Amino acid sequence: MKLYTFKLAPSPRRVRIFLAEKGIEVPMEEVNLREREQLCQEYKQINDRCDVPFLVLDDGTGIGEVEAICRYFEETHPEPPVMGRDAREKALVSMWNHRFEQEGFFAIAEALRNANPRFEDRALIGPRDYKQIPELAERGKLRAERFFDDLDRQLTGREYVCGDAFTMADITAMVCVDFAKVIELQPGQRHANLLRWRAEVSARPSAAA
Amino acid sequence: MKLYTFKLAPSPRRVRIFLAEKGIEVPMEEVNLREREQLCQEYKQINDRCDVPFLVLDDGTGIGEVEAICRYFEETHPEPPVMGRDAREKALVSMWNHRFEQEGFFAIAEALRNANPRFEDRALIGPRDYKQIPELAERGKLRAERFFDDLDRQLTGREYVCGDAFTMADITAMVCVDFAKVIELQPGQRHANLLRWRAEVSARPSAAA
Repeated sequence: MKLYTFKLAPSPRRVRIFLAEKGIEVPMEEVNLREREQLCQEYKQINDRCDVPFLVLDDGTGIGEVEAICRYFEETHPEPPVMGRDAREKALVSMWNHRFEQEGFFAIAEALRNANPRFEDRALIGPRDYKQIPELAERGKLRAERFFDDLDRQLTGREYVCGDAFTMADITAMVCVDFAKVIELQPGQRHANLLRWRAEVSARPSAAA
Repeated sequence: MKLYTFKLAPSPRRVRIFLAEKGIEVPMEEVNLREREQLCQEYKQINDRCDVPFLVLDDGTGIGEVEAICRYFEETHPEPPVMGRDAREKALVSMWNHRFEQEGFFAIAEALRNANPRFEDRALIGPRDYKQIPELAERGKLRAERFFDDLDRQLTGREYVCGDAFTMADITAMVCVDFAKVIELQPGQRHANLLRWRAEVSARPSAAA
């Protein structure tokens, strides 16, 4: 088994934190996105989607997408549960995880990749080139600001995103908030609940993974 | 328990097909998106994300997002499994479901909502208005064409998306292919595997749900 990752990218960090929370050690290999190693022929033959994280099982099966990789480990190592303890909580974790990906991660990625010259012709993750759309960068930044507001509201009166248990929804939200630094966006004084929660989840040993 | 849905929209159709496959009956209420009922104050108080599908449990918990709603029912009614039978298959279902949402559903939605006058100022689903970005409509159409090519390739030598079992990944893919009619895009002769699979999955009784 091998997990392809990149230390500086937000999506593989979600998986590393998840594994740290569960106490699972997996052999890892760095794919240097800064050097565009994900687009090299060698990596393309491992993962034709040209992204990280990517997990290769011992039987050769390749698993991409953060939630899918986490799902694999949640099933093979159920304790401690990080994707919910019962049907209701599992559904809530899935819901918030999905929303934070759309409203947080993709919004920030849109703002970054459609404006920064480093991503010229690389406006979307994946094997195919797409040119930047400046209007999309603006929209992404606006949406990312709203993601902070929505996250703060959800954390009002709640210890964690889904209630009293730390879950994958917290991991996704924390990584998105940290990721927003790349577009020079950070929570402000009006996000008191978010800041309280962020200090707590960032202090967990897993956050350094 | 109540499921808010809309007969003509693709996302709630995914949930209805999923429920039909599992033989689960849930009370449903139509939210007429054509009449913008999802933006009315009454529905906003039920679901502040202003989208369908949306499930309200007997304890009042609201569950949004297709995969989250399906997750709830997969946990409460495990048989027959539609989200995978073992850890590996569960991960593959999650992976393909996620990819088809990004590369299929969102691509088609981008192409539709950024070009059709009916969606002026409604380029994104949700409570907030966003104006159309014509370049995004073009990019969406291009990505949707590539989704057909990728889906056809994945179905080469496989009965269903993830192998020998019909899963939620097939539901998402089938609904996306049907949804593409709104941008006048349909699979062609070069998509022989897709067309063979589509004829089979569309003939399942659940497809009419």
